[in-house]
Order: sequence, then C-alpha cells, then structure tokens
Amino acid sequence: MTNPLTHFDDQGHAHMVDVSAKPVTDRTAVAEGAVVMQPETLALVTEGRAKKGDVLGVARLAGIMGAKKTSDLIPLCHPLPVTKVALDLVPDPALPGIRVTATVKTGGQTGVEMEALTAVSVACLTVYDMLKAAEKGMRIEGIRLLMKEGGKSGRFEAGA
Amino acid sequence: MTNPLTHFDDQGHAHMVDVSAKPVTDRTAVAEGAVVMQPETLALVTEGRAKKGDVLGVARLAGIMGAKKTSDLIPLCHPLPVTKVALDLVPDPALPGIRVTATVKTGGQTGVEMEALTAVSVACLTVYDMLKAAEKGMRIEGIRLLMKEGGKSGRFEAGA
Amino acid sequence: MTNPLTHFDDQGHAHMVDVSAKPVTDRTAVAEGAVVMQPETLALVTEGRAKKGDVLGVARLAGIMGAKKTSDLIPLCHPLPVTKVALDLVPDPALPGIRVTATVKTGGQTGVEMEALTAVSVACLTVYDMLKAAEKGMRIEGIRLLMKEGGKSGRFEAGA
Amino acid sequence: MTNPLTHFDDQGHAHMVDVSAKPVTDRTAVAEGAVVMQPETLALVTEGRAKKGDVLGVARLAGIMGAKKTSDLIPLCHPLPVTKVALDLVPDPALPGIRVTATVKTGGQTGVEMEALTAVSVACLTVYDMLKAAEKGMRIEGIRLLMKEGGKSGRFEAGA
Amino acid sequence: MTNPLTHFDDQGHAHMVDVSAKPVTDRTAVAEGAVVMQPETLALVTEGRAKKGDVLGVARLAGIMGAKKTSDLIPLCHPLPVTKVALDLVPDPALPGIRVTATVKTGGQTGVEMEALTAVSVACLTVYDMLKAAEKGMRIEGIRLLMKEGGKSGRFEAGA
Amino acid sequence: MTNPLTHFDDQGHAHMVDVSAKPVTDRTAVAEGAVVMQPETLALVTEGRAKKGDVLGVARLAGIMGAKKTSDLIPLCHPLPVTKVALDLVPDPALPGIRVTATVKTGGQTGVEMEALTAVSVACLTVYDMLKAAEKGMRIEGIRLLMKEGGKSGRFEAGA
Repeated sequence: MTNPLTHFDDQGHAHMVDVSAKPVTDRTAVAEGAVVMQPETLALVTEGRAKKGDVLGVARLAGIMGAKKTSDLIPLCHPLPVTKVALDLVPDPALPGIRVTATVKTGGQTGVEMEALTAVSVACLTVYDMLKAAEKGMRIEGIRLLMKEGGKSGRFEAGA
Repeated sequence: MTNPLTHFDDQGHAHMVDVSAKPVTDRTAVAEGAVVMQPETLALVTEGRAKKGDVLGVARLAGIMGAKKTSDLIPLCHPLPVTKVALDLVPDPALPGIRVTATVKTGGQTGVEMEALTAVSVACLTVYDMLKAAEKGMRIEGIRLLMKEGGKSGRFEAGA
Repeated sequence: MTNPLTHFDDQGHAHMVDVSAKPVTDRTAVAEGAVVMQPETLALVTEGRAKKGDVLGVARLAGIMGAKKTSDLIPLCHPLPVTKVALDLVPDPALPGIRVTATVKTGGQTGVEMEALTAVSVACLTVYDMLKAAEKGMRIEGIRLLMKEGGKSGRFEAGA
Repeated sequence: MTNPLTHFDDQGHAHMVDVSAKPVTDRTAVAEGAVVMQPETLALVTEGRAKKGDVLGVARLAGIMGAKKTSDLIPLCHPLPVTKVALDLVPDPALPGIRVTATVKTGGQTGVEMEALTAVSVACLTVYDMLKAAEKGMRIEGIRLLMKEGGKSGRFEAGA
Repeated sequence: MTNPLTHFDDQGHAHMVDVSAKPVTDRTAVAEGAVVMQPETLALVTEGRAKKGDVLGVARLAGIMGAKKTSDLIPLCHPLPVTKVALDLVPDPALPGIRVTATVKTGGQTGVEMEALTAVSVACLTVYDMLKAAEKGMRIEGIRLLMKEGGKSGRFEAGA
Repeated sequence: MTNPLTHFDDQGHAHMVDVSAKPVTDRTAVAEGAVVMQPETLALVTEGRAKKGDVLGVARLAGIMGAKKTSDLIPLCHPLPVTKVALDLVPDPALPGIRVTATVKTGGQTGVEMEALTAVSVACLTVYDMLKAAEKGMRIEGIRLLMKEGGKSGRFEAGA
C-alpha cells in the first residue's frame, strides 16, 4: 500500500511533492464553514448592511485575498495561479450565524482544495474580527470540503 | 449606546480604528479549535510521529508563522509585534481528531485575539493539508477564543 | 548644508536611515489623489453602490491594506505599526471622477507620509481595476501630501 | 448590454472573475506617470546620479518589485507570472520632474495592465520617498495606461 | 560578444529580462551549503532530535517555504510556480556541522537556480537561529549550485 | 543547566519564545559574508558600475529589503521594527569576489542578529543572480555574525 502521508518522504522528512510530471488540468474546489453567534450579533450584520457597515462585503474580500495567500500560509502547498475565487456569505437565523461558501478554480498540476478552505477560514476570521466588539464567544464551525473535481483522484463530494 | 460595529465609521465605511491614544499594555489571548477525522486517519498521525513524518510539528510551525501574518490576512487588523506564540496540538481519540490551542502575547495598543485565532486556523488547515490524501472529509470545528486579558475591555473567559 | 538626499550615505550608497535615536512621537499624515474618468464611468460607480457593486468599498479596503504594506513596497521605508488608517472616497462630478483621501497615524520614530500616499495610490489603482472594463483611458492624478504633523520637521501643510 | 462592472456578480458581490476558459495568450501593457517637483529638487536627482546617490536606480528597482506584488495589492487581480518588467525613468526639466514608463509582459489568461500601472505607481512613490526631505509638496500626476495588447479585448492605445 | 550582465539593458538599467519567447521546459536545480559549528553545538542537534526538539525539521520547512519566496527576495527574479522542493539536512561530524542540499523543479521559462540557492540559504539561517543561544560564532559556508538542467543553456554540474 | 535550545519547550515543541517581560533596549548587530568568483566575473562588476549596470547597488537594496522580511523567513523569529539597515559591498580582488557587511539596529525586546545575517544572505544571493549568466560556479562563503550588542546576553564579537 502506498503511504497516504504524501507530504513526507521515505525517511519521514517533509517535502513539497513533485508534481512536475502531472498534466495541467482544470480543477475546481468548493468549501464551506460558518460563524455561529447570538441572534443579537447576527442582527448587527443583517441590519447593518444598508447603513452601518457591510460586514459580509469586507469578509468576502478578505476571503478572496486569503485564497491568493494559500501557498504562503500552508508550508507544503504548491503555488498556483488561481483563475477564479468567489465567496458566498449568507446570514442564517437557524444557526444563528453566517454561512460561508468558497469556490476556487485553477488550471494546474495540483488541486485547489486548500485555496477554497483557506478562503473560507479567512472570511470566517474576518467576520469574527468585525463583530468581536459585540460578542467574543462566537465560534467558527464546520469548515470542510464540499466538492472537488479535476486531477487524477477525480471527483469528491462530501456526504450530507 | 455606542456602535458595536467599531470597524465602521458613522457613515458605515470600513476603517482601521484609531488606537493611537490607547496605552501600551501587556495582552494575552488563547484560542482553540480541532480537526475531526476518522480513527484510521488519526492513527496515521499518532503512529507517524516517530517514523513516517511529524504532522503535528509541521502544523505547529505553520500556526506560529500564521500568527505573524494576521494583519496581512484580516483587513482591519492593526499590525502588532507579537512577543510570544505557542501552539499545542494534541491527538484526541474521543473526537477522534487533533485539538489545537494557541497562546499569543504582545505589548501593544490592541489585543491579540485575532492572532491566536489565526494561528489555530492555519494550524488546522495545515493538518488538513497533510492528511487530505488519506481523508478528504475531515472537518475543522470549534474555533473560538478561550481567554483574553489586557486592555480596556479587561479579561474574557469562554464558558465551558 | 546637510545633504537633502538622506536615503544615501556619504558615498552615495542607499541605506535605511538610522532613526534609533529619535523619540517615539505621535505622527499623522493625510494624502489625497483622484481617478479621473468619463461621466458615464462615474455613473457606474454612483448608481452601482446600491445594487450592482460597491466599487468604493472595495477600493477603500484595498487602500487600508495597502498602507500596511508600505515598507514592503518602498525600499528604504522603515516598518511602522500604524495605529489608524482611514480612507474617504468621494465621487466628484466636477472632475468627473473619484477623489481619495487617506489619513494615517502612528506612534513611532518616523513619519507616515509614505503610508498615507501608498494608501491613496493603492485605492486609486483598485478603482481603475474595478472600472477598466468600462474605460481604459482613466487617469490617476494629483497624488500629494496634504498634511503631516509630529516629528522633528514639524507640521507641513500643502498650499491650496 | 453586459454589465461593465465585471468584478461584481449578479447580486453585486465582488468576486475574482472566472478566466479559466480563456486561452493563454501573450500580453503586453505599457503605463506611464510622473512626479512633478521644483527645479531645485530635480537637480538633486540629475546631479546626484554620479556621486550622491542613484534615486532613479532605486525607484526603478522598486517598480520592478512592485509589479510582482500586484495581485497582493489589488484585491480582485488574478495572480500572473510576469515574464518581463522594464521601467524607464527620465528627468524632464519641462515638468519639471521625473517621467516614469513601465512595460510588462506575460503569457496568461488575463492582461497585465494593473501590473504596469502598479509598477509606475510604486516607482513614483519611491521617487517621492527619496526626495521628500528636500520637498514635501511634490505631486504624482498622470498615471495612465498607454497601450495594451493581447487577449479578447484586443489592442488599446491611449489618445495623445 | 553578448553582454553577460543580462539583468541590465544597453543603458545599464536593471530590468526583469523578457523571457516571454522562451519555451516552457522542465527545469531542475540542486544547491548545497553548510552551517559549521562546534562539536558541542552539533551534539545538541543530533541528540535533540528525539526529545529536545527537531532543529533540522524546522530548518527543512523554512527552506521549503523560503523557496516559494524567492521572487519576493531577489529583485530581478521571475515569479515561478515551483513543482517540487525537497531539502536534505545531514549532520556531518567532519565539519563539524550541518550539510544542506535543496532540489527544486519547475516547468517554466526560466531556471530554478535561485530557488534552490534561496532554499539552502534560508535553511542555513534557520539552523543558525535555532542554535545561536548555544553558539554565536557559527558560520554559513559553501553555498553553491551543484547542478541545473533544462533550458537553453543546458546542463551545468559543479566541479568536485 | 538551562536548555540552550531555547526555541523548543520542555516537550521539545518549537515555539516563539516569550520575550514580553524583557525590557526594550537598543540593539545592534553586524554580519558579514562574501561571494567568491573568477577574476573575470569580478571585473564585470567593477568595470560595470559606471556604464553597464550597478550590480552592487541592486544587491545592496535587496539586502535592505531582505532585512525587513526576516521574521517572514525565519519561523521562530520575532517581528521587529528595524530602525537602521546599512550594507557595504566591496569588491576584493584577493578573494576574488565581493565582501558584504550589514549593520542593523532596533529598539526592541530581542536582538537583530538574524536581520543582519538575512540582509547579508539576500545581498549575496542577489549578487549571484546578477552574475550567474557569466559564471554558475560562484560560491557564497563565510556568512557569520561579527558583532552584536544590547540585550541581556551583552556584547559579542567574533574572533579574527
């Protein structure tokens, strides 16, 4: 069986895996996560959009820029020229909180799962930062990969 | 009542809040989070340490370096010279998964909550990256502030 | 007379000037600039705010984050922990275009003129980027320091 | 008519546009700008080159390095591997001041207009920084795109 | 004869050389270097691995991440998406010290010599940092290119 | 005896050491290194200055900017606001090659040894990059700390 710890060599040393022989293919990844908060805190976001400040707009931009920093943050990640980054931030009274979804594309030799997960994480952290004066007890929950496609390992879809 | 959306001015425009009149005080923040995975994936981490590769060591370093990039990632965060960053990554068979705790200190005019939360997030993302060849369905859960002290708003401790 | 090219030593070699003996004082700088465009392009901004997209909000955030990258961009600039960054972006039909003003503060050993000018420049570049599909002939004009205070050289105010 | 605000989606949310279906083509962009100053300040530059310090050499290098940071600075810019960056900085007694021109090339899926404009902006900011001890009232003027070619929108040339 | 100072144009101005007409080919570079220290210091590394701390693991990771920052550090270097980075750090009692070797690959229009040399340099600096509390007199020695292949200039191998 | 591997805690885990209780003091560090090359390659540098291109000027600037990136490159380094960076690059026909010396100052809670060593390393790498088209066999040699002062461990001076 092959070693599933692909980021380490035979001696257990970390390395950036050689992908130079892999074909350049179109790759997409979608990730999600959420910031869970009190209903009063969520109200600041939903009521604020129009007049007091666009929390979700700032977090969306932070997520997009965060995706571009992925290979700076994750030590063994290959640098990749992303060709699309889009984030969706939706207030959900049932949480209550903000649901974040990120979609990232590239044409490259490795996937963009980490870029999508990083975009979600940075957007969630920014939501926390924008609202922490109101509530310090918010939690970032359920960051996970929803879908990826392209590349040798094929398509992955998260269970429900 | 004062506007709790401190990152926006009266017109609802985002800004980096003026902290120039605040005193420089010692500040500490502790944050936590976890990566939840299958028991077989966790076994790769716990058995791997000695011979196959030190997943937790790589993630710890990524978290430390991530803390230093906080003001690059979070748009309205003040740049701060952190004076301590320490991460604890502990395998927990009860999750099953890895529990991550980060402690950050500074002497400055604003707190280091975002630095601690960013350190945890980047460490969790790195754990995911190191293990994603074995399991794509892992989830990052429960990222939250455990404690902060120093500064005008005083001490905060998360409920159990 | 002292050499006004302070960024060079006696031999004409570039260096980062020694400011270690300077006192830490409060410093403020205000800079301005503008992006000049066709009235139709400006209309996209002013009408778009509500429904089609917040060009000025994105540019404002880019300017704030740009201020934090000043010492990365300007080779001989000292790194400085800025304590406030605020940008004002105002549509001006008389230009026609967008007027940008940035205010930056720090408590440090050197001034924040470059931070304020960099914030304005990055905000103007971002306005251009957001609107270039509509008009490639826009021009960035009149980037200048309006005011600085704090530090040995005292207060500066631009003429009208 | 298509929405000219391509950086926003149908709901007015900012995103990094999907360029994954665009062909990789050769692209070139040329931008210009100027730093306007007093004749005495300009004399410091032109006389200084030989002995007192190479202001233009420092600014040229800052512009080249700035071009490489474009996608870090401009939130919705795609990261691009630039294949050429050249800057021309020419003292012009008629301004009086320094004229800056930047040429950038890439083979990619989007253009390099922002890279050329960023290179000019950073070079102008650096000229300001190098000379601000002599004159704080300098102005950065006339930053604009002179030419671009390659890509679906074809060739653009600025009017005289 | 052609000018061997390819990073300067005919007027002696620095530029990032135009490589847009060069074909994309597979490229590899291997570089080496060493940190020379007292035998007692080396013993801290070799004995420490198991219990006191993995100096070489930290330095290896720093070298990998350093390779990704090459075009940020070296002014006229083209940005390149590296496809492999591996470092070997071996204690050598004969020095006494640590020998560092880095192998970097890309598919691109320019070589990865600078990426390999930067990886070695950053790993050596990190070894120094980790051990400087024990010995400040360590020296970094013999950083050089061992091999490169791919590209028009063909294969290079260092003499013994 | 205290553990000289200060970058690891009792369990052997890497951390950024807590310096929050240390006083802010003036600190200076001086480091040196050299790039050794063929006499013909050195001649390109010494003859080039006037007309063909200022290799040493580019490398000096790269070293200054590199010093500002130290805490980005060295995982466990504290971020520090450097207050002076100066580099001296001197052609030495006896090597033959270029001797590089860097002096860095700060007022802070930790020393600037790593900043001085990083400045030297980046300057040496840049010299290599500028001259590699002429000679790939150059070597970077003898990077070491010459002097440091300030802080609890006091003054260090390298032996001859």
